Amino acid sequence: MSREDTTDQGCRNLRWALALLDGLISGGMRRLVLSPGSRSTPLVLAGQRQPELELTPILDERSAAFFALGLARVSGRPVGLLCTSGSALAHWFPAVIEASESGIPLILLSADRPPELRDWGANQTIDQTRLFGGFVREFHDPGASEEGPAALKMMRALGARAAAVSLGNWPGPVHLNLPFREPLVPAADCEAAPAPTPTLRHTRPLWLPRSSVGASMDAPASSQFCSERPHSHREAIWNEGQNTGIPDLASLLSGRGLICCGPGVCPPAFADALWACARRLAVPVLCDPLSGLRFGPGSEHRIARYDSLLRNPHAAAALKPDWVLRVGHAPVSKILLGWLADIPTILVDPGQGWSDPTQDVRLRIRADAASVCRWLAASEIDPPGGSPTSLDWLARWTTAERQLDLLAADALARFPWCEPHLLADLLAALPEGDGLFCANSMPIRQLDTWSGRRDTALRVFGNRGASGIDGQSSTLAGLNASGIPTTGLLGDLSFLHDLSGLLLLRQLDRPCIVLNNGGGRIFDYLPQRGLPGFERLWRTPVELPLGELLRPFGIAHRAVSDGAGFREALAETLGGAGSGAGVIEVYLDGEISRAVHREFWNSLTIQGLEFE
Amino acid sequence: MSREDTTDQGCRNLRWALALLDGLISGGMRRLVLSPGSRSTPLVLAGQRQPELELTPILDERSAAFFALGLARVSGRPVGLLCTSGSALAHWFPAVIEASESGIPLILLSADRPPELRDWGANQTIDQTRLFGGFVREFHDPGASEEGPAALKMMRALGARAAAVSLGNWPGPVHLNLPFREPLVPAADCEAAPAPTPTLRHTRPLWLPRSSVGASMDAPASSQFCSERPHSHREAIWNEGQNTGIPDLASLLSGRGLICCGPGVCPPAFADALWACARRLAVPVLCDPLSGLRFGPGSEHRIARYDSLLRNPHAAAALKPDWVLRVGHAPVSKILLGWLADIPTILVDPGQGWSDPTQDVRLRIRADAASVCRWLAASEIDPPGGSPTSLDWLARWTTAERQLDLLAADALARFPWCEPHLLADLLAALPEGDGLFCANSMPIRQLDTWSGRRDTALRVFGNRGASGIDGQSSTLAGLNASGIPTTGLLGDLSFLHDLSGLLLLRQLDRPCIVLNNGGGRIFDYLPQRGLPGFERLWRTPVELPLGELLRPFGIAHRAVSDGAGFREALAETLGGAGSGAGVIEVYLDGEISRAVHREFWNSLTIQGLEFE
Repeated sequence: MSREDTTDQGCRNLRWALALLDGLISGGMRRLVLSPGSRSTPLVLAGQRQPELELTPILDERSAAFFALGLARVSGRPVGLLCTSGSALAHWFPAVIEASESGIPLILLSADRPPELRDWGANQTIDQTRLFGGFVREFHDPGASEEGPAALKMMRALGARAAAVSLGNWPGPVHLNLPFREPLVPAADCEAAPAPTPTLRHTRPLWLPRSSVGASMDAPASSQFCSERPHSHREAIWNEGQNTGIPDLASLLSGRGLICCGPGVCPPAFADALWACARRLAVPVLCDPLSGLRFGPGSEHRIARYDSLLRNPHAAAALKPDWVLRVGHAPVSKILLGWLADIPTILVDPGQGWSDPTQDVRLRIRADAASVCRWLAASEIDPPGGSPTSLDWLARWTTAERQLDLLAADALARFPWCEPHLLADLLAALPEGDGLFCANSMPIRQLDTWSGRRDTALRVFGNRGASGIDGQSSTLAGLNASGIPTTGLLGDLSFLHDLSGLLLLRQLDRPCIVLNNGGGRIFDYLPQRGLPGFERLWRTPVELPLGELLRPFGIAHRAVSDGAGFREALAETLGGAGSGAGVIEVYLDGEISRAVHREFWNSLTIQGLEFE
Repeated sequence: MSREDTTDQGCRNLRWALALLDGLISGGMRRLVLSPGSRSTPLVLAGQRQPELELTPILDERSAAFFALGLARVSGRPVGLLCTSGSALAHWFPAVIEASESGIPLILLSADRPPELRDWGANQTIDQTRLFGGFVREFHDPGASEEGPAALKMMRALGARAAAVSLGNWPGPVHLNLPFREPLVPAADCEAAPAPTPTLRHTRPLWLPRSSVGASMDAPASSQFCSERPHSHREAIWNEGQNTGIPDLASLLSGRGLICCGPGVCPPAFADALWACARRLAVPVLCDPLSGLRFGPGSEHRIARYDSLLRNPHAAAALKPDWVLRVGHAPVSKILLGWLADIPTILVDPGQGWSDPTQDVRLRIRADAASVCRWLAASEIDPPGGSPTSLDWLARWTTAERQLDLLAADALARFPWCEPHLLADLLAALPEGDGLFCANSMPIRQLDTWSGRRDTALRVFGNRGASGIDGQSSTLAGLNASGIPTTGLLGDLSFLHDLSGLLLLRQLDRPCIVLNNGGGRIFDYLPQRGLPGFERLWRTPVELPLGELLRPFGIAHRAVSDGAGFREALAETLGGAGSGAGVIEVYLDGEISRAVHREFWNSLTIQGLEFE
């Protein structure tokens, strides 16, 4: 034990931790979400000495990580996570996977026992090395703390580097494993303070096409995640000297095409360039609900009702394109994805993503999507956009979209109040500039089907990287804590999967809407429906009265079961400025919802659509 | 999408899944804990067709995994876990780490999307390959399902192998990643049924020392985990031809020694051999609370109060041994571990463990501990056990132990009712043969300090592999579901870390005792106490009224704050046969507890102990 008894070890640990935080703060980190523990003490002490850093303690590491994910998704800044040694950091894994797949910058700071205790059966000690495998962009273990200017310089640089990598060309989590020897608390006479750290700036050689150099250099770079305050050292890869694929682009863009914007593109910076590009090419733009493009100032090119439209076989055949230009992740709509299979695809992707589940990509442009759109809008390429045929092509889509608007409105009028009506009420009520966080499984699909378009801005969020039902309440709390008032739309199972998140929902600015329809209703729309044991093994309803559940957490609860009740609850919770909007539980009869959807979709298959 | 439309794909998936389960069942698996999902459907359907398999649906994969851990810890059988693709399996990770470190057989069955969808940006698809890194004993991905007898034979063999490996020389989790193509539900005319599978038997060449061959071959092998029904194909490594270390043993065992039994040894099979060995060597046996040896028919060699005893500097010096024979994991007591540093150590370890945090092992015997004890008890080695000095040596320990019994009783009489009294009440009340599950952080340390010994059997469990505060309620539910009525002893933070576990606590046969002392009181005993921000950043109390919290879950709640109340609640909950014992919340004043412990330990440092 003698190695742990060094008298100034506590002070050395603290200086080491301070230097690391210096670097991380210089790289933009402003929040540190920590779970309780002993081994992490030097970093907590260092965090307390950093006035620029806000510390948020959250007991359950899993919930902490999803909260951090929400924070980082909105802020675009790297958000730190801190926990003690042992299995603690493994609880971060689901959120780390989502962050990796969605390109969210997280800084994972796991405290560890020193090397001499690892793999020797010491208490609360496991092999934390590369625990997150390929789901982090970098892993570092700088060893136990050391003395001296060079050592502290290295730690500052490591912090700055971790932040930069998390925000880089391929944003995502970075894991730093940090062993500390005892004692973990410094003696009273330890002098340790933050030090100013030079900002790490980095870029690749960057030759934008002449026509758009100015715009691209000035505008915030869009990327796989959408940030409020993107950092200046974001990379863009659009190298004039290497744009070897561009000649192909002209040939690929011949004939009737469309642009498909999936989750993870970045309005508003991107939107103007996109609409200009769509005008130039005279093509429709199919906007995923998580593209953010359905809501806000739009364009006649904007199409939101394809998931319904393409259920009409005649439309699906007549509207088939010759090419598709895809931006962002694969769209939520399975109908759309299946329909696009075998269509030659151009994928614009600034990062490392190969978003091509049907393996149809012919050209992959590794570039910022806004730059590409600006370039296409101003390009010398001669797309068939000007021909009468192509104008017809666009007109077919816009006509069909308007017709679907009417059919959807008609369905709302005919059917009993359920999810479609709820979404219409919600989208009518949410204030401009608000956020909407939509959970996976049914809510995002129903938003996809029913949202249509709206002209006032709304930021739509979803954990669509891995599309789990996990961590939804915690993510919602993190989104709200970033300053964008964000309403949640969750199913009951998602809500109950993340019970630790309830500890974070007390202070929401906006309500968390829980669609309580008795379990996983997505299975009602899948072939599993009606199998023996269906309720118990697939739909798995949880018998738990939400109102009672929420009371000890101090979360306001409103239960509604019809449109009037929902609109009233929504008005009450959206009206009050400030905290404690709580939960709106909406009782829904899953059988009615299913009947409504079936009838609507069936009506579409036989509908004579006038899109020609 | 054509590849997914093969008409008999659903039937092929089902047969494939059935064959895998055939093999797993032949290897001893009887329980499958599953979380809802679509991609896992073929395995659920197969599970429903296996009458020998009990299916348990649990919504939160993290809770499901700890529940399975509890099941497997008691039963000694491999327990299956099943979940859908994406981040779902990452929630298993904390329990997988604990299972790996504790040597618990889990079969991790993760459904996956087929290879053509992986890494192409498809929905809910991540790289699940080797997700648990080095924390599983084997990883297999047999690919998508295939037709024909050879393919099904391979799947049966894979199941049998996975079960065997999970129970092998180094027990632990095995991960099978299982991609399925759509459709996931077979057509109505699909014929698929379980098939009898030959049991896989395997052993290494096994030459036990002649004197103990019979006993060792007949007795259940003990190992790193304690099982009720160990399997016949457990390996033992004690090879007469290769026992090259044994000559060293005689020289290492010269002088005054002791045996230290840590967590993870296996009474009762081991106990008789152990006591015989201790008699032969005339040495004390220091029994960790998780060794299981403190409770049940004992021996005068049994020492349980070393954590108190060794706080007396005179005793710590006078009782220092020349050698220690260690069995199991490192002991809970940090006092003991520090005191044993630099003592030449013989480690008996049947698996791959290097349980040697102070790096003092001189001889590592890779063998079943019971065999080694039997061999030593009957050996020709001439230990100094027969000399008068050695008898004195043992007498010193037993005298000191009795004196500590009196001091502890005296302390109980003098101090206000708190944890020490609670433990005495609890150990007096628990029925013979019951289980006690003790959470990490304070509860296990307080049990260590105060338990003493008892002559009626009690099985003590703890997740001491990684020693996290995670998954405690879920583990407790799993232990109870295995047929051993098991009382839980948890701190408030542990209890609140695993809120999903509340969904499993309704049907407990025994109470879950929650020590509510306002947060992580272990920090009161560490140097962090009193630091600025101590409450918020280290002790992290959670303001949540447990009674209200438990009500919607249908869990009975009793709140007590003194000895009479506790004993009454205990009698009520232990008395009733059957279900719904619920939670006993014990309000404790952490300051009083701290004062009691300080005063007791201080009294020990100045106490004149008569152990010579």
